[in-house]
Amino acid sequence: MAKLFHHPVDPQSRFIRLVLSEMDVATDLVEEKPWERREAFLHMNPAGVLPVMIDATGLIVPGASPICEYLDEAYGDALGEQRLLPRDARARVETRRLIEWFSIKFYAEVSEYLITEKILKRFLPIGEGGSSPDTAAIRAAKSNVRYHLRYVGYLVRRRNWLAGDRLSYADFVAAAHLSIVDYLGDVPWDEDQAAKEWYARLKSRPSFRPLLAETLRGTPPSATYADLDF
Amino acid sequence: MAKLFHHPVDPQSRFIRLVLSEMDVATDLVEEKPWERREAFLHMNPAGVLPVMIDATGLIVPGASPICEYLDEAYGDALGEQRLLPRDARARVETRRLIEWFSIKFYAEVSEYLITEKILKRFLPIGEGGSSPDTAAIRAAKSNVRYHLRYVGYLVRRRNWLAGDRLSYADFVAAAHLSIVDYLGDVPWDEDQAAKEWYARLKSRPSFRPLLAETLRGTPPSATYADLDF
Repeated sequence: MAKLFHHPVDPQSRFIRLVLSEMDVATDLVEEKPWERREAFLHMNPAGVLPVMIDATGLIVPGASPICEYLDEAYGDALGEQRLLPRDARARVETRRLIEWFSIKFYAEVSEYLITEKILKRFLPIGEGGSSPDTAAIRAAKSNVRYHLRYVGYLVRRRNWLAGDRLSYADFVAAAHLSIVDYLGDVPWDEDQAAKEWYARLKSRPSFRPLLAETLRGTPPSATYADLDF
Repeated sequence: MAKLFHHPVDPQSRFIRLVLSEMDVATDLVEEKPWERREAFLHMNPAGVLPVMIDATGLIVPGASPICEYLDEAYGDALGEQRLLPRDARARVETRRLIEWFSIKFYAEVSEYLITEKILKRFLPIGEGGSSPDTAAIRAAKSNVRYHLRYVGYLVRRRNWLAGDRLSYADFVAAAHLSIVDYLGDVPWDEDQAAKEWYARLKSRPSFRPLLAETLRGTPPSATYADLDF
């Protein structure tokens, strides 16, 4: 059985949890707090970031993008039309472009700010990063999310799914990042109907259920977080 | 003929220039100033980052990692033993882990600071990012580079090349980022003999020559930048 070191508030962990579920790869989830810098964890991934997968053969795969590439190489052919990294060269480029868009750009401009300021700072002891939230950072993230939401809307008005006509990694990385922002109630869904409908389609997939059922101690989800008709 | 939009001080552009030269992919270089946010450039890569490749068929591939994956899919099999993304699953994971290490972590901790503070701030007009350098950021980057250099040394004392027994993308991404820091004279090579010898091996490859011959107006290279016996 595969094993995934993850954290419930980490969007890249959520991305790979969705992907593993979509691919039907049976996985044991192990919660990791990367800020504790546990030695055995750093040994698996010296960069100290989540998620880290250990596949059924014992191969350690650190980081969401290397995991996506590995999973496609290991299982892609067998998945046929359900493959999440498309076969066609142009569509592969577009999927990888969007994985980077959300993993790097959306994370730096939106999810990292909100997770740090609204969740981690509340729970970490002073000295390990705990402090009062920086309201300017929260304001910036809430302003940035509007532009990203419009970009999602722009893409899905032209295509069936984010990277093209088929569901791909791009949809899951985007939905994973948006899901944690949505948990905090900070996605202005009503500002883009196409983006909202796209998210509703993803949210109702069985792979999403475990994420929607999770709650963080001390931070209740927004009223519509788990609601499929939000 | 392929085309690469690049900038001489951008380490990710340098990485792909090295790779294209190693793979013998004939390429026209086009200098792009991403901070100008040229509309036709943003159309090719909405994230606004370098490099962007257009291959001989007209396919636009934005971003260093998507370019690496694309090149391996397009040319990897034909390269045989010279392939830069190894064939073996474990070695592919290690190569991709190190691409992320340098593209994301080294960039955020070292190269982005130094390029911004020592180069871009000097040349950009006030209002487009020009200002006096932040000496605290420069100090932090110069302290961080020591740790990364030790990590390179640690890896190459155990292996022939950075990701294993064969030359791979990992060597070129690491050398590209170090090369711009070396241009500025900020790599303490004498602190790690193994890392220095590894860099000397890369620096003497023909693919490196164009980089070593370039100079930036107003910022001369460090005394040993182009020296193969530094």
